Amino acid sequence: MSTVDDLARLAAVIESRKPANGGDPEKSYVARLLHKGPDAFLKKIGEEATEAVMAAKDIDHGGDRQKLVNEVADLWFHSMVALAHYGLGPAEVVAELARREGLSGLEEKALRKAQAREAGE
Amino acid sequence: MSTVDDLARLAAVIESRKPANGGDPEKSYVARLLHKGPDAFLKKIGEEATEAVMAAKDIDHGGDRQKLVNEVADLWFHSMVALAHYGLGPAEVVAELARREGLSGLEEKALRKAQAREAGE
Amino acid sequence: MSTVDDLARLAAVIESRKPANGGDPEKSYVARLLHKGPDAFLKKIGEEATEAVMAAKDIDHGGDRQKLVNEVADLWFHSMVALAHYGLGPAEVVAELARREGLSGLEEKALRKAQAREAGE
Amino acid sequence: MSTVDDLARLAAVIESRKPANGGDPEKSYVARLLHKGPDAFLKKIGEEATEAVMAAKDIDHGGDRQKLVNEVADLWFHSMVALAHYGLGPAEVVAELARREGLSGLEEKALRKAQAREAGE
Repeated sequence: MSTVDDLARLAAVIESRKPANGGDPEKSYVARLLHKGPDAFLKKIGEEATEAVMAAKDIDHGGDRQKLVNEVADLWFHSMVALAHYGLGPAEVVAELARREGLSGLEEKALRKAQAREAGE
Repeated sequence: MSTVDDLARLAAVIESRKPANGGDPEKSYVARLLHKGPDAFLKKIGEEATEAVMAAKDIDHGGDRQKLVNEVADLWFHSMVALAHYGLGPAEVVAELARREGLSGLEEKALRKAQAREAGE
Repeated sequence: MSTVDDLARLAAVIESRKPANGGDPEKSYVARLLHKGPDAFLKKIGEEATEAVMAAKDIDHGGDRQKLVNEVADLWFHSMVALAHYGLGPAEVVAELARREGLSGLEEKALRKAQAREAGE
Repeated sequence: MSTVDDLARLAAVIESRKPANGGDPEKSYVARLLHKGPDAFLKKIGEEATEAVMAAKDIDHGGDRQKLVNEVADLWFHSMVALAHYGLGPAEVVAELARREGLSGLEEKALRKAQAREAGE
């Protein structure tokens, strides 16, 4: 099973958990998050981002790399719940990433921005 | 071009920007981030997470949904830079997501945890 | 000069930088943030929170404690800019903290919540 | 009771909750956080920062301003727990803020940095 299928399948599962699609907050974690509304899953994005940062810092001192994988998985997962709530999905995110990567000169532009920012730091 | 190819190709581009692989901080934004070290790209994860949350909140009041896509793309992109630094990539993250999704009873376990947390909020 | 005077004086400086009070975005960093609007200073809250977390993690491995002080100062400062934008200030925050601390049984309640959350983690 | 006394008193309460000072994780929320170690309270900093940002965004659309006060209080409170763990307190943070405010030309320097960053955004 390929990565694309995995992400698309996960997005389909999340979609099926929407209240409008019969997701039951008493039986599904995702349905519960979607039922509680944006603040519930958006808060998780901030929380999981912080946990990913801490897991990364720990690797420099012997921490388990799988912990970082797990935290980034949590971060992407809750991002996908937010995307689903707004009628979006990982396909749009990956398309945007591909669009940028495909743009000639993209990195050079980002680099000039970063150099200007650095001058300002 | 499929999503999996897109993510794998982007990961390969990031990989090629590592200092050890000849990435030039003067020519590439990713090489610059990797050259500056973990705090530079980890800080971006916290920053982009906050921007994604703000973009989502704005949608409820007429904000552009593409803004959320862009911010989540930024968030995933900088996550991938961090993963690359530690010898990891999106394949591990998606595999972890697929593993969880495939685990029978996973949501039920997450749900019980969420219910206990909610009782504690 | 006491802490209260310091915070109140800083709040007064921030207040004077509001566009309505003649703050000039070309001459003052705070006026510039306030002029750009909420996303500009709210983004900084997420960014500085992440930097504070990283500075704390570093202390465990020989990092400078003053770095944590600096990052928390940045975090509180940008919180105060946000508060000012909404007609609030540190006095309200400290009053809320004092109110909680003064509430008998407060920690016991927070503790029961934390124990329930932990059971759910 | 002044603000400085309030912050200093709260810092003293937190100090008394340290395991080394007899804080009991079974009886005190702060003792529990300190007992669990840095990741427990650092994670809260990222979480409360996100909640503060969301509360601020809500004010623009009729949300209660007190919610922002509460979230910033949570953010500062957990910052103080982190500071205490590392032998620091709000006095150092406020001193740093006062030091910056007192530095002649400080805002001008921050402004030039912000202008350079903006040129790079």
